Amino acid sequence: MEPRLPRGMRDILPDQMMLRRYVIRTFERIFEAYGFEPLHTPALELRETLMGKYGPDAEKLIYDAQHREGKEALSLRYDLSVPLARVVAMYPHLPKPFKRYQIAPVWRAERPQKGRYREFYQCDADIVGTTSMAADAEIVALIDEALTRLGFRNFVILINDRKLLAGLGRFSGVPEPLLGQLYRAIDKFDRLGMEGVQEEMRRYGIPEEVIRRMAGLLAIQGEGREVLQALAREMAAAEIPEAMEGLRELEALLGFLDQMGVSPQHYRISFTMVRGLEYYTGPIFETVVTEPKIGSITGGGRYDGLVGLFAKQSVPMTGTSFGIERIIDVIEELGMAPAGLRRTPVEVLVTVFDEERMGAAIATARALRQAGLNTMLYLEPRRLEAQLRYAHHKGIPFVVFVGPDEAARGMITARAMDTGEQRTLPVAEAARWIRSALGGSNGG
Amino acid sequence: MEPRLPRGMRDILPDQMMLRRYVIRTFERIFEAYGFEPLHTPALELRETLMGKYGPDAEKLIYDAQHREGKEALSLRYDLSVPLARVVAMYPHLPKPFKRYQIAPVWRAERPQKGRYREFYQCDADIVGTTSMAADAEIVALIDEALTRLGFRNFVILINDRKLLAGLGRFSGVPEPLLGQLYRAIDKFDRLGMEGVQEEMRRYGIPEEVIRRMAGLLAIQGEGREVLQALAREMAAAEIPEAMEGLRELEALLGFLDQMGVSPQHYRISFTMVRGLEYYTGPIFETVVTEPKIGSITGGGRYDGLVGLFAKQSVPMTGTSFGIERIIDVIEELGMAPAGLRRTPVEVLVTVFDEERMGAAIATARALRQAGLNTMLYLEPRRLEAQLRYAHHKGIPFVVFVGPDEAARGMITARAMDTGEQRTLPVAEAARWIRSALGGSNGG
Repeated sequence: MEPRLPRGMRDILPDQMMLRRYVIRTFERIFEAYGFEPLHTPALELRETLMGKYGPDAEKLIYDAQHREGKEALSLRYDLSVPLARVVAMYPHLPKPFKRYQIAPVWRAERPQKGRYREFYQCDADIVGTTSMAADAEIVALIDEALTRLGFRNFVILINDRKLLAGLGRFSGVPEPLLGQLYRAIDKFDRLGMEGVQEEMRRYGIPEEVIRRMAGLLAIQGEGREVLQALAREMAAAEIPEAMEGLRELEALLGFLDQMGVSPQHYRISFTMVRGLEYYTGPIFETVVTEPKIGSITGGGRYDGLVGLFAKQSVPMTGTSFGIERIIDVIEELGMAPAGLRRTPVEVLVTVFDEERMGAAIATARALRQAGLNTMLYLEPRRLEAQLRYAHHKGIPFVVFVGPDEAARGMITARAMDTGEQRTLPVAEAARWIRSALGGSNGG
Repeated sequence: MEPRLPRGMRDILPDQMMLRRYVIRTFERIFEAYGFEPLHTPALELRETLMGKYGPDAEKLIYDAQHREGKEALSLRYDLSVPLARVVAMYPHLPKPFKRYQIAPVWRAERPQKGRYREFYQCDADIVGTTSMAADAEIVALIDEALTRLGFRNFVILINDRKLLAGLGRFSGVPEPLLGQLYRAIDKFDRLGMEGVQEEMRRYGIPEEVIRRMAGLLAIQGEGREVLQALAREMAAAEIPEAMEGLRELEALLGFLDQMGVSPQHYRISFTMVRGLEYYTGPIFETVVTEPKIGSITGGGRYDGLVGLFAKQSVPMTGTSFGIERIIDVIEELGMAPAGLRRTPVEVLVTVFDEERMGAAIATARALRQAGLNTMLYLEPRRLEAQLRYAHHKGIPFVVFVGPDEAARGMITARAMDTGEQRTLPVAEAARWIRSALGGSNGG
């Protein structure tokens, strides 16, 4: 039988894991610095838990699962937000605000393409149980800090509001049943520009007069609060409650962002940013990296209605998902990883000179390990060149030899693989030399 | 719709996650200290990859998965060993020895019972590409060190050898096709005792004469090498190659265990320990905790034939799986976690006095975060008692107040939740006090 992976799936071999771990641990640290706690939910959910939340296009991509005698219809989770809503509904006594993060795989049967897989990690932070715009602002501050800490510089967190969008639609005269189509048209702004969006609206059957009004509103631009004030002036005469509420939300959000010290360079109100998922109800966020052009790397927003699908009482929620797979790829491609990050957690390879010296090699490996070094023993005698090639190939920074000469003198020889520098020392001193040469941590 | 979990699945809420993380990180550190590297494989494998490896009883428990337009038959992985064998066969150029660990969920549709779930983590370390018994010995040394580091004291790593078992069967005259049944009978030794095992053999149609001889061999007991020598004497006349090879393997293994400094109290040769899975071919290991009696917490062994099912060339492999879910439960039940381990990563809750003081609370939270403390901002004004109760409920060790008095003096008040001690200080000094009171790490 030929060893194969399912279509769209991948292995992550050890030399790719260190960078991945560095990124994941960085997120964990920042989430926890902001008071978010880890949560685990199972990969399999009841099919009914997932269905009816994402919209029909998304639901086509969900994997179903079954065991031979199973009576329940199960599915692999499609994201981490719906499982969170299920958790919040199931455990009503969880103290609120409930701030949780989860970094875990999800499964979507999308058409595989370069850098896109059918199993991929999502990296989510959400705040449950408060309608305060301070929560939404904290999500934006968190995005800002996480991306900055990971080395991103030229990014903008786009901010919009679903209530405001609905209000704009109503103000322009978009018929209620076409609101979904309106969003879908606006969502294409980046690719098609304003002309293209208007063309799309036409295709969806939105009247010409309405399209013109809508385009006028979407074209309003400006810095910070200005753009909100301009929009408010434009709609002043019409009393559209959703629009007013959306504007109030964004005003409050901007106020908190000031207090939280988020750089105004790092966010912008954008009336043309829509987000695909159906469940958003308030402010929405999306981060685009402008230079180099790598597109969107976070997405999220407020979704106050989701828990209500599972429980009598609704519970407000807001949060963001980081496109962690994309972020890992970009950090690798652009060389943004910290300088000391190696390809392997192994710090020393203890070579085996010959059968007779196996005991000495074992004792040396033990001693180095006890001195706190991640130590690999080669496990069998082989030509030294082969053992050195192995260390080189794997990126192990130090190699240790315990030959007859060294053994006779109670010493070992340690070699730095990068510089070739070599020292013959008692094992404890060799360990100290290696430790100091290695410096700080390795992404752990 | 009622929020429910699938049968046999569970959520792990934040207050359970810190202990879990402490155990996982401890394993990761020890694996890496021994030169093992992390590997990731997808949860979904081709169904054909998994089938025919575990035996029919196990395969009944495998979950199949499918998406609407999928043409491949997929399954959720049942363990981490078969995916490893698939990886080894797919990437023949991986440098050997290839030492990998993987701590990840697997899925088995077993009957749910207390402490047993259908999704659970496996925690595996394996060495690929060497037939040297030094590899098997290193696995035993790793088990010894990991369990010791986690606080286990009264455990024994039982060691047997599949070649030896086959040899004993042949020596006793067990017909070749009944070897599997022989193992299954011996496997029940712990529950049924020698009498019961003999009864089982009878049920399987093994002749009485054979049963007597087999029982005689299985009853041989002794310390370390003695038991091997006693067995060798018993079988001296018969030249059974598998038995001789099995004895040689165990002799070599014991020699390396000496050199590696594994305490003889922590392992024992046991001819009645069999392991369930079909793919083992050499030494096998299983750890039982003797006091308190919590049964088996590791299982593993050598399986040199598995890669051969995927590739022309076979590749030797040996390793162990730690029953990490059971280990986590036991550490919790017996209070074996380190003293400083808390229920939450949050170190400080910044309370919000009133709407007006929201800005001061935000600024304080930022400053504490910048001083390196995991800081949660309460996000909205609420009665102080409610905010204190929240901190208490979640196990957050420090609470900070920024009321009008403090704000006027440029100070904050910090309170230790356990002792009630309270200090009013400038924020930087408060942060230092909290940091020093918290002491070391929190399982991170």
